[in-house]
Amino acid sequence: MGSTENPPWSRVEFEQQLREKGTGYHIHHPFNVLMAAGKLNPEQIRGWVANRFYYQISIPLKDAAILSNMPVQDMRRQWITRITDHDGYDDEPGGIEAWIRLGEAVGLKRAEITSLEHVVPGVKFAVDAYINFARQRPWQESVCSSLTELFAPEIHKNRLATWPEHYQWIEQDGLQYFRNRITQARKDVEEALQVTLDYFNTRELQERALDILQFKLDVLWCLSDALTTHYLHPVLKDDYRNG
Amino acid sequence: MGSTENPPWSRVEFEQQLREKGTGYHIHHPFNVLMAAGKLNPEQIRGWVANRFYYQISIPLKDAAILSNMPVQDMRRQWITRITDHDGYDDEPGGIEAWIRLGEAVGLKRAEITSLEHVVPGVKFAVDAYINFARQRPWQESVCSSLTELFAPEIHKNRLATWPEHYQWIEQDGLQYFRNRITQARKDVEEALQVTLDYFNTRELQERALDILQFKLDVLWCLSDALTTHYLHPVLKDDYRNG
Repeated sequence: MGSTENPPWSRVEFEQQLREKGTGYHIHHPFNVLMAAGKLNPEQIRGWVANRFYYQISIPLKDAAILSNMPVQDMRRQWITRITDHDGYDDEPGGIEAWIRLGEAVGLKRAEITSLEHVVPGVKFAVDAYINFARQRPWQESVCSSLTELFAPEIHKNRLATWPEHYQWIEQDGLQYFRNRITQARKDVEEALQVTLDYFNTRELQERALDILQFKLDVLWCLSDALTTHYLHPVLKDDYRNG
Repeated sequence: MGSTENPPWSRVEFEQQLREKGTGYHIHHPFNVLMAAGKLNPEQIRGWVANRFYYQISIPLKDAAILSNMPVQDMRRQWITRITDHDGYDDEPGGIEAWIRLGEAVGLKRAEITSLEHVVPGVKFAVDAYINFARQRPWQESVCSSLTELFAPEIHKNRLATWPEHYQWIEQDGLQYFRNRITQARKDVEEALQVTLDYFNTRELQERALDILQFKLDVLWCLSDALTTHYLHPVLKDDYRNG
């Protein structure tokens, strides 16, 4: 019997299934586990911040791609705040600027961050997969893919709780990005969750939604894989690549 | 002094610069070095074949994307043979079928290969980056990106030379793909090289060509990185991901 013949899950059960995907969130990736345990050295922390910046600057592009596929004015009026949250508006500098300040707090120069000179190919490919998904898929699927934000407040809170003790060499002011995102992610995820629960309303579509969320979890996981390969097992590149 | 003020390299020197990029070809990646040394177990060989199949089936899509951006009929008449080389025509089964036979020779079932069930996210993201490049960039840049084929005959010949001894459990008939590609890659690369030497005719463009070739080298390198993470250091996924 194909899955199309199964009745849809209730909204409560569907939401539960989505939330259970959190077991694959990158908070469980060894790179993040080591980071939270205070086991990374300054170069590795800087590598993470510099590489993750590529994800940060891609968020407004991704959200603009979603906006360009979104024919519903009310939805656009909600979604556009995701872009201004990152790019800023008026005197508000926004999330990208906050990330640069995090970079400076860990000892990177602004130009070193914005030039993307430290960004490794695996990070680019994973993040670009996310942008291209948003460009090419129906907007409801892209909204669904944003649901990793269900799990984001925990990772940000964890960093705020552990970094000041483990990484005393990092200026505290630099952690403002994490503080901002706890509130922003909560607001964003509520609207994205309602869209997802409404749109994916057959069992087949609900299972498709789980696959989409898995895709986005894979993007974040691969980002940490690439950092692991580059900053924890650098022998892989340095000993062979230019040999 | 900016690079735009430098005179272009001669064709001979430009070609030499392109060929020197071969030091970053994935023949030097530890995963491939171990494979050529007979150090991989059957599961790891199968993992490589099953994952690399995603690259194989993406080649015709990539070449069709280039074709769709190519306004020059004569070029299209040359380029289209890349698609038929892989998809086959008339009674000729083509490269994808040859790869499936390689898969069967290493102990995979046809359905296991074609379902893509073993393909890991990092491989998908890297290969999709290549397809999206071909969709979005001018055709001459995509042609340039194919120049990793300058280095391909050596890797195929190396497999034909080393596998029969190291991996006696693999049926010899399965290696036909590598035999076919030695000839095909030589023909393909000659035309791609001429296009590249013609089109990238200022120093700035020539340097851009080197960056494009580096991008394609990164795609192949990341593919091996993802296989390394999954099949050589599986602890990274299995111990944490669903924990």
